[in-house]
Amino acid sequence: MQTHNVHWELMRTQCQNLLMKLEVPQDEAWIIADNLVDADLCKLESHGVSRMAIYMKRLKTGVVRAKGKSAIVHEYPASVLWDGCNSMGMVSGVRAMERCIDKAKENGSCVIAVNHSNHYGMASYYTNIGARANMVALSTTNAPPNIAPWGSYKSYLGTNPLSIGVPTQTHPMVLDMAPSVVAMGKVILAAKLGQTIPEGWAQTADGKPTTNPVEGMKGTVLPIGGPKGYGLSLFMDVLSGILSDAEFGPHLNNMWNDFENPQNVGHLFWCIDIEKFIPIERFKARVQQMINEIKALPKNPGIEEIFVPGDPEQLSRERLKKEGLEVSSVVFEELKGLCEEYEVPFILEKKGEK
Amino acid sequence: MQTHNVHWELMRTQCQNLLMKLEVPQDEAWIIADNLVDADLCKLESHGVSRMAIYMKRLKTGVVRAKGKSAIVHEYPASVLWDGCNSMGMVSGVRAMERCIDKAKENGSCVIAVNHSNHYGMASYYTNIGARANMVALSTTNAPPNIAPWGSYKSYLGTNPLSIGVPTQTHPMVLDMAPSVVAMGKVILAAKLGQTIPEGWAQTADGKPTTNPVEGMKGTVLPIGGPKGYGLSLFMDVLSGILSDAEFGPHLNNMWNDFENPQNVGHLFWCIDIEKFIPIERFKARVQQMINEIKALPKNPGIEEIFVPGDPEQLSRERLKKEGLEVSSVVFEELKGLCEEYEVPFILEKKGEK
Repeated sequence: MQTHNVHWELMRTQCQNLLMKLEVPQDEAWIIADNLVDADLCKLESHGVSRMAIYMKRLKTGVVRAKGKSAIVHEYPASVLWDGCNSMGMVSGVRAMERCIDKAKENGSCVIAVNHSNHYGMASYYTNIGARANMVALSTTNAPPNIAPWGSYKSYLGTNPLSIGVPTQTHPMVLDMAPSVVAMGKVILAAKLGQTIPEGWAQTADGKPTTNPVEGMKGTVLPIGGPKGYGLSLFMDVLSGILSDAEFGPHLNNMWNDFENPQNVGHLFWCIDIEKFIPIERFKARVQQMINEIKALPKNPGIEEIFVPGDPEQLSRERLKKEGLEVSSVVFEELKGLCEEYEVPFILEKKGEK
Repeated sequence: MQTHNVHWELMRTQCQNLLMKLEVPQDEAWIIADNLVDADLCKLESHGVSRMAIYMKRLKTGVVRAKGKSAIVHEYPASVLWDGCNSMGMVSGVRAMERCIDKAKENGSCVIAVNHSNHYGMASYYTNIGARANMVALSTTNAPPNIAPWGSYKSYLGTNPLSIGVPTQTHPMVLDMAPSVVAMGKVILAAKLGQTIPEGWAQTADGKPTTNPVEGMKGTVLPIGGPKGYGLSLFMDVLSGILSDAEFGPHLNNMWNDFENPQNVGHLFWCIDIEKFIPIERFKARVQQMINEIKALPKNPGIEEIFVPGDPEQLSRERLKKEGLEVSSVVFEELKGLCEEYEVPFILEKKGEK
């Protein structure tokens, strides 16, 4: 596959400039661009700058609000119902998480449910923010359906992610998992890149196994652990969609082909202030002890290092910040096309091809 | 398999009487017995009255406190660090959950972490209590290790459960899942009953597949979704063991063979007061809409009804309350033996054998 080597900060600036052209304020464009580029740094390209084209289209049609806005619907010491006012999901997400941290610091913990929002990118972006503020941070969001309830083959629930993060003595330890064997975003990206997908990732719309990502996109991805992954997905939707009074399941509007009706996505943010339980240094030391003990366990054949959640992403982040992002030609050309369309200088130099 | 048909209330009274003989107060003995019998009603026999023998042994040796006690270590509007003072896990669990509900009603949400506790039985017992009080309720606990971190074959983490419950227009919808393909309790029960286990449930201590539950007990059960189930298990331990300052991973003392050192199990309880977000009747109606829509989806071949989390348990509960518990001879004789040992009248009449 042909790729282009691009410095991550250059990519962030490129995306920020594109978003600003559609009247997204500078600071908000930075948040969105940083979230996308961080996903690429983590090799979660399905949630990276490959999303720029659809975001730009949604901003241009006005189905998403360019300038972020929010309203507090209800507020108590440890809960907030937050109206995202159809802003970009990343903007509402970061602001809600920051508020959640502040309130948790005051009262011990806090939950914020957000409605009237949009795709918020990589869930671990928010739990990383919380963990860096010395919180146990949890986040989930709902998404249009691509998982079938166990016992059916019909798509009803999204691959709603569950992310949890905590601080350690180094970088945060962060779990970010879809309740499916893979995220639908990986199937979408495979389709975009013309690749096949492994068996066991997805099934067709009438419940047959498939290695064709286009058929998989029309069907559903498969939940981990059968009814367990289905149950997780369902409860993530209850937490993010029903509790917040956003849409849920198949009632969420599709970001890919509906440019008239806002998505009305829901998110949930939950922070626990660790210091209200034990001294933060003790917490970090105990988590570090757990990590060190796990890494010292005997390894299966072929395993070089035992990872804790977030390790692969952090290693990738560090490596790609040095070596540059490997951007596929498809996505590279798409960004170039966007720059032409919106008359934004194209600053991603072609540094290498593989 | 030979079984004995026993009315559930008779079984609860039998267990309560046994526990009271070891100086567990009447109301606390009721809580413990009700939790165990509810697990049997749900067909989660691994967490049912088959645990009575080990609970009695631990109470008798004094490694667990018979009369419940607790101390608030730190308290804030939305968080409590709760010292279980080595009481029975069910007693600390119910009391912590009740406190969590009260505080969530006042402040929107609340988190309670419990340390110095013991095995608390079925996690959904607590989330059912929360859901019936109109909460979104979450609970987790840690347990001695029987899962290997992904990349190793060495046991380090427990099959730490994650339970979430919400109210509906009928009975609560409750997820209660181990992060493994099956709970170790099911392997233990299979060993007790002399049965084999399916492949894929467990591996031996040196990482080989096995269908022998005794070998599986010495080894580990396998996580769902590979690194995902491992990550869930790890974070459930961080939430219940590390945040609370209880023990974690392999540092938890074993309930089966250590009668000198308290287990120092940790639990976590989290409640969100739904009414602080949307009117409870609207929440219930929307959850019910989701349930009804899921049940109306087309079914896979051989499926009679599509379930939502908690359905199989609730159906079993309703059926066995009418038809009686089917108690295996092994467990039945064990209870009879306990009654003889502790000079408690044996009230479980032999009603039928199969």
